[in-house]
Amino acid sequence: MHLPLGFSAAGVACGIKSDPSKLDLALFLSDRPATAAGVFTQNQVVGAPVKVSRSRVPSTTVRGVVLNSGCSNACTGQRGIDDAQWMTAAVAEQVGCQPEDILVCSTGIIGHFLPRQKLAEGIPVVSKSVAAGDDHFLAAARAMMTTDTVPKQAMRKLSLGGKTVTISGACKGAAMIAPNMATMLAVVMTDVRIIPETAQKLLTQAVNTSFNCISVDQHTSTSDTVLFLANGATGITIGDTAMQEFQQALTDVCQELSQKIIRDAEGAEHFVTVDVIGARTSEEAYRMAKSVCDSPLVKTAVAGNDPNWGRIVSAAGYSGVKFFEEECSLAINGIEVYRAGAPTQFDADAVSAAMKTGEVHFVLTFTHGKEQSRCWTCDLTAEYVRLNADYST
Amino acid sequence: MHLPLGFSAAGVACGIKSDPSKLDLALFLSDRPATAAGVFTQNQVVGAPVKVSRSRVPSTTVRGVVLNSGCSNACTGQRGIDDAQWMTAAVAEQVGCQPEDILVCSTGIIGHFLPRQKLAEGIPVVSKSVAAGDDHFLAAARAMMTTDTVPKQAMRKLSLGGKTVTISGACKGAAMIAPNMATMLAVVMTDVRIIPETAQKLLTQAVNTSFNCISVDQHTSTSDTVLFLANGATGITIGDTAMQEFQQALTDVCQELSQKIIRDAEGAEHFVTVDVIGARTSEEAYRMAKSVCDSPLVKTAVAGNDPNWGRIVSAAGYSGVKFFEEECSLAINGIEVYRAGAPTQFDADAVSAAMKTGEVHFVLTFTHGKEQSRCWTCDLTAEYVRLNADYST
Repeated sequence: MHLPLGFSAAGVACGIKSDPSKLDLALFLSDRPATAAGVFTQNQVVGAPVKVSRSRVPSTTVRGVVLNSGCSNACTGQRGIDDAQWMTAAVAEQVGCQPEDILVCSTGIIGHFLPRQKLAEGIPVVSKSVAAGDDHFLAAARAMMTTDTVPKQAMRKLSLGGKTVTISGACKGAAMIAPNMATMLAVVMTDVRIIPETAQKLLTQAVNTSFNCISVDQHTSTSDTVLFLANGATGITIGDTAMQEFQQALTDVCQELSQKIIRDAEGAEHFVTVDVIGARTSEEAYRMAKSVCDSPLVKTAVAGNDPNWGRIVSAAGYSGVKFFEEECSLAINGIEVYRAGAPTQFDADAVSAAMKTGEVHFVLTFTHGKEQSRCWTCDLTAEYVRLNADYST
Repeated sequence: MHLPLGFSAAGVACGIKSDPSKLDLALFLSDRPATAAGVFTQNQVVGAPVKVSRSRVPSTTVRGVVLNSGCSNACTGQRGIDDAQWMTAAVAEQVGCQPEDILVCSTGIIGHFLPRQKLAEGIPVVSKSVAAGDDHFLAAARAMMTTDTVPKQAMRKLSLGGKTVTISGACKGAAMIAPNMATMLAVVMTDVRIIPETAQKLLTQAVNTSFNCISVDQHTSTSDTVLFLANGATGITIGDTAMQEFQQALTDVCQELSQKIIRDAEGAEHFVTVDVIGARTSEEAYRMAKSVCDSPLVKTAVAGNDPNWGRIVSAAGYSGVKFFEEECSLAINGIEVYRAGAPTQFDADAVSAAMKTGEVHFVLTFTHGKEQSRCWTCDLTAEYVRLNADYST
C-alpha cells in the first residue's frame, strides 16, 4: 500500500496518549501545492480543528495535513482554536510554507486541551521523518488510531493518458461513528491534477456512498473530517472521458476505508450489510437502511445470531418513510423470512447458522420503485458497552 | 392502588408464555359503556391489535380492554387481524356486548401467530375472574408484563363536585421503548364523565409530556398503545373549571407510569433525567433532550458512572437544532461541567460519585429563549445486550 507520487508521510509518538510508546502524531505532505477539498461533520458542536481546516478548503495551495490522536480538541472554546492554528503554524515553519496551507485534524476525548509542549517537541520530529515509503504511510495511519485495533488504508490505481495514477487513503474509527455528510478522520490523496470545484464534487459523491453509509453507534462525532488532496505530480489532468472512471476509483477507496471502520468497530463481531431495494427514491431507501443500522435492538440480535426479523422490519417502519406492510419483504443471508407483510415458514436454525459466519446481509425489498441504498453496520456487543462505560475515567 | 368506580379487572395464565405459571392474559372491564380515546404507535409497521383498536376509538360505548403478553401479533398479515378481531368477539360473548366495544392489545415477540386454542380456553376464565379489588388490578398489571420485573400502576384522586374521583392506570415496558406520539401498552381509567373529543385532547396532552418523553433504546415499537377509558360512574362531569386540575392529574398518572418503565428498563442500573432549558421552542428542546436520551455513547458512559460530558453536548449537537457552542452550558447532578462553549474546572471524581447513586440529572442550558423539555432514559449495560442477543432463539 503506497502513497501517490509526490506525497510523503510519517507517524511518531509524542506522548499525547497515556502509553508513551503509542504513535499519536501523523503528517501527510505533498512536495508541491495541491488542490484540497473536504467534507466535515454536520454536528452543531464541532472540534476546533474542523473549524480551522473547514475555513481553509477548497484550496489550490495545500502542502499537508497534520493529525493527532488522544485528544480531539473539541468543546475547548477559543483556546482550542488558538491551539489548532498554532499547530498548523508549527508545521508550516518546519515545512517552509504558510500556516494556511496546512490542514489539521484531531481525534480522541472531547473537552480536553491539546498538550502544546508535547506537540512543540513532536512536530519537528514528525516533519523531519516524512518519507514516501510504504512503512511511512503505514506509520501515519497508525498514528491516527484511537480505539482502532488495526490501521486502515486503501489504494486504487488507474491508467490514464498512458501513465499510472494512484489514489491512496488512510482513516480511523472505531466509535462515535454515524457520519452525517462527513465522517471520521480520513485523508485521501492522488497524484492527478484536479481543480478545486471538481475535487469537491468528486469527494462529496464518493463520501455519500461510503462514509455516510456506515454507523457504529449513530453518534455523529464533533470531529468527522474527510480531506482529499490532489497534487498533479503525474502531470495527468483528468479529462471528461476519465471522470467517471476516476469517480468510481475514488468511491472504491472511500468504501474500502469506511468498511474497514465497521470491521474494526468497538466490540464488533459481525459485519452487517443492509440493502434496501425497490424504493421510491434513493433518499427514502437510505433513510430506511440507516434506521435499521442504528437500531440497538437489531444490533444486539445480530450479536446473538438471532434471526429476530421483526426488529428489522419495525426499524424500517419508524424511519419516517411511508409504506404498507404488504409492500415489504425481507431476506437474511439469502433466506426470505417475511414476504409481502406476512411471515414465511423459514428454518430459523439455518438463518442463525448463516449469521454465525460473521457476515450478515439484510435485503429489504419494497414494491415502490427502482431506487436503492446500501449501508453498513456492526453488531452491538457487551464488549462495546464495556469499552465505552469507562473511556474517560 | 385501586381501580376507579365501576371498573373491574383480572389477570390469568393461559399458556401463551413458555412458563405456564406466568400470567399472560389481562382484562379490564367497565360495568357500563365508557368513553374511550387512544394514542397509537406512528411506526408504519403496526401490530394487528393496533389496527383493530385504532379503528374503534374514539367511542362512547367501550366496555373493556383485553390484553395478552407473550405474542405481539404484529407482522402477521390478514390472519393476525382475523385473530385480533376474533379475540374481541370471544370476550364480547362472555361480557354480553358487541365485539366493537372491546379493545385489544398484544405484546411480545413479533411475527408469531396468536395461539387461538389457548386463548379460547383462557378468555372465559379471565372474564369470569374480574373483580374490583386491588389484587385483581395488580393481577391484570402483572399479566401485561413481558421482560418487566415489576408490575407498573399509578393512581391519582381528585375532589370534584364534593365527590372523590379516581384516575388509575397500568402499563408495561421494558424494551423496544421510544414512543413516538404513542407508547408501550397502557390502560388509564377514570370514573368521571367525559365526551370523546375532550378525552382525546386530555390524553394526547398527557402522553406528549410522559410516554413520548421516555426512551430505552429509541426503537419505536409496532404495538405502542395508550388507551383511556372514562365511565362516569361517579356521576361527575368535568366542568371547564376543573379541566386544568384533571389534566394535571392525568398527566401525573401517565408520567408516573412512564417513569416506572424507565426504572424497570432491561438491564438498567441508572435513571436519567434530561432537562433542556432556555430553548427557542419546546419542540427544539424536546429534540435535543431526545437526542441525548437515544445516544448509546451517553448511555454507556452513564453505565460506567463516567462524566464524559462531551458525548452529551455532541448528542445535542447532532439533533438537527441549530446553535453555537457559546450558547450552551451543561450541568451533571448540579455540577457545571461546560459553560458557554468551554470546559469548566470540575471535580470529575465528585461527579462520578454523584452518578453512582443511580439517579442522574443532566441540565443543558441554552441562551435562546424560555422554552424547555424534560425526557427520561436509562443506561445501556452489558446486561441489556445479553437480554436482547437471544430474545427469540
